[in-house]
Amino acid sequence: MSIQSIDPRTGDKFGPIFAPTTASEADQIIGAAARSFEVWSNTPGAERAKILIAIADALDANVEPLADMADRETGLGKVRLTGEVARTTFQIRSFATALLNGKFISPQLDAAVDAPLPQGHPKFMRTHRGIGPVAVFGASNFPFAFSVFGGDTASALAAGCSVVIKAHHAHPQTSLLTYEIALQALTDAGGPTGLIGLGHGHDFGRAIILDSRMRAGAFTGSRGGGRALFDMAQSREIPIPFYGELGSVNPVVVTESGLSDVKVFVGAYLDSLLMGNGQFCTNPSLLFVPENTGFLQEVKSQLAERDALPLLTEVTKTLHDKNRGILVESTGAIIYEGKVAPAIGFFSSPQVLATSAKGILANPRQIDIECFGPTGVVITYSNMTELQGVLRELEGALVGCLFSAPSDFSAPSLLNTLATMCGRVVFNAWPTGVAVTGGQHHGGPYPAATSPLHTSVGIQAITRFLRPVTFQGVPDELFRATTLEQLPT
Amino acid sequence: MSIQSIDPRTGDKFGPIFAPTTASEADQIIGAAARSFEVWSNTPGAERAKILIAIADALDANVEPLADMADRETGLGKVRLTGEVARTTFQIRSFATALLNGKFISPQLDAAVDAPLPQGHPKFMRTHRGIGPVAVFGASNFPFAFSVFGGDTASALAAGCSVVIKAHHAHPQTSLLTYEIALQALTDAGGPTGLIGLGHGHDFGRAIILDSRMRAGAFTGSRGGGRALFDMAQSREIPIPFYGELGSVNPVVVTESGLSDVKVFVGAYLDSLLMGNGQFCTNPSLLFVPENTGFLQEVKSQLAERDALPLLTEVTKTLHDKNRGILVESTGAIIYEGKVAPAIGFFSSPQVLATSAKGILANPRQIDIECFGPTGVVITYSNMTELQGVLRELEGALVGCLFSAPSDFSAPSLLNTLATMCGRVVFNAWPTGVAVTGGQHHGGPYPAATSPLHTSVGIQAITRFLRPVTFQGVPDELFRATTLEQLPT
Repeated sequence: MSIQSIDPRTGDKFGPIFAPTTASEADQIIGAAARSFEVWSNTPGAERAKILIAIADALDANVEPLADMADRETGLGKVRLTGEVARTTFQIRSFATALLNGKFISPQLDAAVDAPLPQGHPKFMRTHRGIGPVAVFGASNFPFAFSVFGGDTASALAAGCSVVIKAHHAHPQTSLLTYEIALQALTDAGGPTGLIGLGHGHDFGRAIILDSRMRAGAFTGSRGGGRALFDMAQSREIPIPFYGELGSVNPVVVTESGLSDVKVFVGAYLDSLLMGNGQFCTNPSLLFVPENTGFLQEVKSQLAERDALPLLTEVTKTLHDKNRGILVESTGAIIYEGKVAPAIGFFSSPQVLATSAKGILANPRQIDIECFGPTGVVITYSNMTELQGVLRELEGALVGCLFSAPSDFSAPSLLNTLATMCGRVVFNAWPTGVAVTGGQHHGGPYPAATSPLHTSVGIQAITRFLRPVTFQGVPDELFRATTLEQLPT
Repeated sequence: MSIQSIDPRTGDKFGPIFAPTTASEADQIIGAAARSFEVWSNTPGAERAKILIAIADALDANVEPLADMADRETGLGKVRLTGEVARTTFQIRSFATALLNGKFISPQLDAAVDAPLPQGHPKFMRTHRGIGPVAVFGASNFPFAFSVFGGDTASALAAGCSVVIKAHHAHPQTSLLTYEIALQALTDAGGPTGLIGLGHGHDFGRAIILDSRMRAGAFTGSRGGGRALFDMAQSREIPIPFYGELGSVNPVVVTESGLSDVKVFVGAYLDSLLMGNGQFCTNPSLLFVPENTGFLQEVKSQLAERDALPLLTEVTKTLHDKNRGILVESTGAIIYEGKVAPAIGFFSSPQVLATSAKGILANPRQIDIECFGPTGVVITYSNMTELQGVLRELEGALVGCLFSAPSDFSAPSLLNTLATMCGRVVFNAWPTGVAVTGGQHHGGPYPAATSPLHTSVGIQAITRFLRPVTFQGVPDELFRATTLEQLPT
C-alpha cells in the first residue's frame, strides 16, 4: 500500500507517493542505528546536548514551511501548528538542558562502608547507559510534538540511544521535511551517521519492534494498534520495554461549589472539548455535573454555534463516528449538536451526549469508550455516592480534573479518587494543554500508558531509555577512562 | 499436588503436608489485599516505616528457629542462613529508613512559571503512589532474602502496596514460620488486616498473576517459570509490570596483569563458584583466563579437595546435571572434578569445565547456558580479539567482573564491554555477595531481569512499585488534606 498525503478538508490526495520501506531498507536503517548507538551512547552528555540544540535551532528556523505543510496534511490550522513547533523545540532544549546540568546521567557515588556484613560494602558508582536503539512511532494528532522529532525521539537521543522512526502515514511530507532538517543539522554538528532513521508503512513498524537489535519502543496512538505493537514487543525472545500511550477517557468532575457562572463555564468546557477538534488524548471526555444547574441548556445553546471541523484522516472520522454511535446506544443519551458538517473531506459535527449517573448505576454499561474527536459526554449526578460510584468503575486515564471551591468538604476525597486512576490530577483547570516541565506526569494506569511508571512528557521521559549500571570497586581514574564521565564531587 | 518439606541431604520428606491453596482461598486473600491496599497506600510513610521495623525486629528475635528450619529444608547450612536472616532484616530496615528520610515518596514541587507558552505553567506537585497489590514469588535459593519477607515484599510494602506471596514449595515450613512471625508483628503494630497474604501451589501462582486486582509481580527463579509468568502478566487485558530475575550466566575476565598468585586466585575462584553450592544467580559462571598460566592445573588439584554438597531440590539437581551434560557436549570441555557425591539425597560433585575461546570462535556454540549449581566453565584465550569476540556474543547478565591491574591498557575497554551486557561491573573482586546499599544495581539486560531499568536489591528497588501522580494547581492545604503528605520545603 503506497502512502500519499490527503487534505482532510477536501479528501483530495496531493504530493509525492511514498513507497513503503522494504525489509532490506529496514535492515540497513536498523543496522546503522545499532552501529551509531555504540558511538552515541559513549558520547558525553554535553556533546549530545550541543547536537540536540543545533537540531532545535534548525527546526525553529524552518517553522514556516513545517507549519504550512502540516496544516495541509492535518487540517489543524497554522496557528496551532506554529505553536506546536515552538513546543517541540522547547522540549528538545529541555532535554539538552537536563544533560548540561548532569540530570539523570551523572554518576552517583555510594562510598565504601568499612563494617561487617550486611552493612559493609566497597565503593559503588551508579551510572546510566542508553538502553539501545529505540523504535519511535509518530502520532497522527501531533505532527511535531509526538512525531519525527517529538518527545520520544528527543528523550531517547538525550539518553544516548539511536532512534528509528516510523512516520505516520497521515503526514508523510511533514515527517520527511522534519527528518531532513534534523538530519542536516545533526550532520553539520558532527553527530554520528545513522543516529536517526526514518521509514514508512505497516511492515516497517513491525520490523522495528521485532528486530533483535532494537531495544525499546515508544508509541502514541490508538489502543488497537498500540496493543498489537506492545504484544509483539513482549513476545520477542528478548522482550523490550514498550512505552505506549493508548488513549484515555478523562473524567472532569464539577461540584456545586465549582460551578459559579454557568455560561462562562460551558464556554470554557466547549473550548477544551473542541480544541484540536477533540483530537487530544487529554480531552475532557466525561464531564460530571450536578443535576438541575442549567448546564445542559447552556451546552445546547452554545454548542449550536460551534463549527464542524475536519478530522485528521478518513479512518479517524469513521472510527469516531462509529464509537459515538456506540456511546449513544449504550447510554441512551440525549444528543446536543453543533453546526452541520459539510459533505466533503472528513468533517464531523461536534456533539455532547447527556446521560445520568443514576441511569448508569441502575443499568451498568460502559461509558469509558474513547471517542477520539469532537464528542463529549456529560453525566449529571444527584449526590456524592452516585458520583463516586460511577468514577470507581472507570479505567485508567491520563488526567482527571476537579472544579470545586478549595474548602469544599468533598474535594479531598474526590481528588484522591481521581489520583487512584489518573496520572495527573488538575484542580480548577481543564485537562487539555500539557506543560513541558519537570513536574509533569503524562501517563497513568493502562490504557493511558502501557507502563504506569513512566511519563512521555517532561524531562523525566528520559528515564524510559536509561538502564542503570553499577561499577563496584573501580578506581577513579579507571572509571573515568571507562565511562568518559566526570566524577561526582 | 500436595507440598511437603524434603531434606536435601537425605531425600526424606518431613513435617506437615500443605494443601495447595484453592481458588476460593486465593480469591479471599486477593480481596483482602485489595482492600488493605486502599488503607495502606494512604498511610503516611513514617507509619509504614514503623511497622516494617517492628517486623524486622520480630524476625531477628526468631533467628534461631528460622535458620534451623531453613537449614533442614534447604541444606544451605546454619551459618549462611543465620547471616541471611540478618541481611533480610537489614534490608527491611533500609527501606524503612528511606521512608523516614522521605526518599522516593516526598512530593517534588515544580513551582509555577509566569511566562507565555511553552515555558509558562501552573504549580505542579509530583508525588508517587503504590501501584497496587503485588504478587511476590519466593525463590528456592534464598529462603529469607528473596522469599516471604525478602526484598520484593519489603520494597512493595514500603511503596504502599499490599502483597500476596506464593511460598516456594522447597521451604514451606520456613515460609509459614516467617509469615506467622511477620503477621503477628504487623498486627501488633497496628498494620491493616490482609496486607500480606500467603499461599501455596502452582495454581495459586497463576491466580495471583492473572487476577485483575493484582497490579504487579516480582519473581526470582528459573528462566522457564519466570518467562511463563511474565507472559501471563503481559497478556492480561490490563498488563502489569512483572519484575522477573530469570537467572544469569556471569562473565569474569582475568587479564595477565590481574593474575599474580595463581594458587591464591584459584582458591578464591572456587570459594566464589561453590558458595551456596553454586546456587547463586551471581555465580562466576564463565571465567576467562589467559592461556598457559598454570591456572587449570591448579584448578585440577584444588578442586579435587572440594566436597560434594546437596542441591536444594531434586528438580534443581536434575536440571543442573542435565545442563552440565549439555555444556560438556556443546563445548567438548575437559572436566575437572571434586570429591565424589554420596548416593543419597540431592548431592552433585562440583566440576569445572575447561574450553578455549579459539575453539568457541572456530565452531560457534552456545556457552551461556545457566548451570545452576556447582559447575564453572573456564575459557582460556590467547589475545584480546578472541576474548572480546566471545564476550560480545553473550546474553545479558547480572554481573561481570574484571581482574586486572588498574593501569592495564585493556582495562577500560573490557570494563566497557562488560557494562554493555551487565547490570553490575566489578573490579578485582568476585561477583557473589550483593551488598544491600543505595548504589547497588541487581538487574541487567534480559534474561538477568525482565525489566532492564530496575534493581531487586538496594533501596532503588522501591521504585518498581511506585507510580507517579502529578497534582496540578492544587492549593497547599487541599493537597495536604488529599495526600496526607508533608509539603516540600
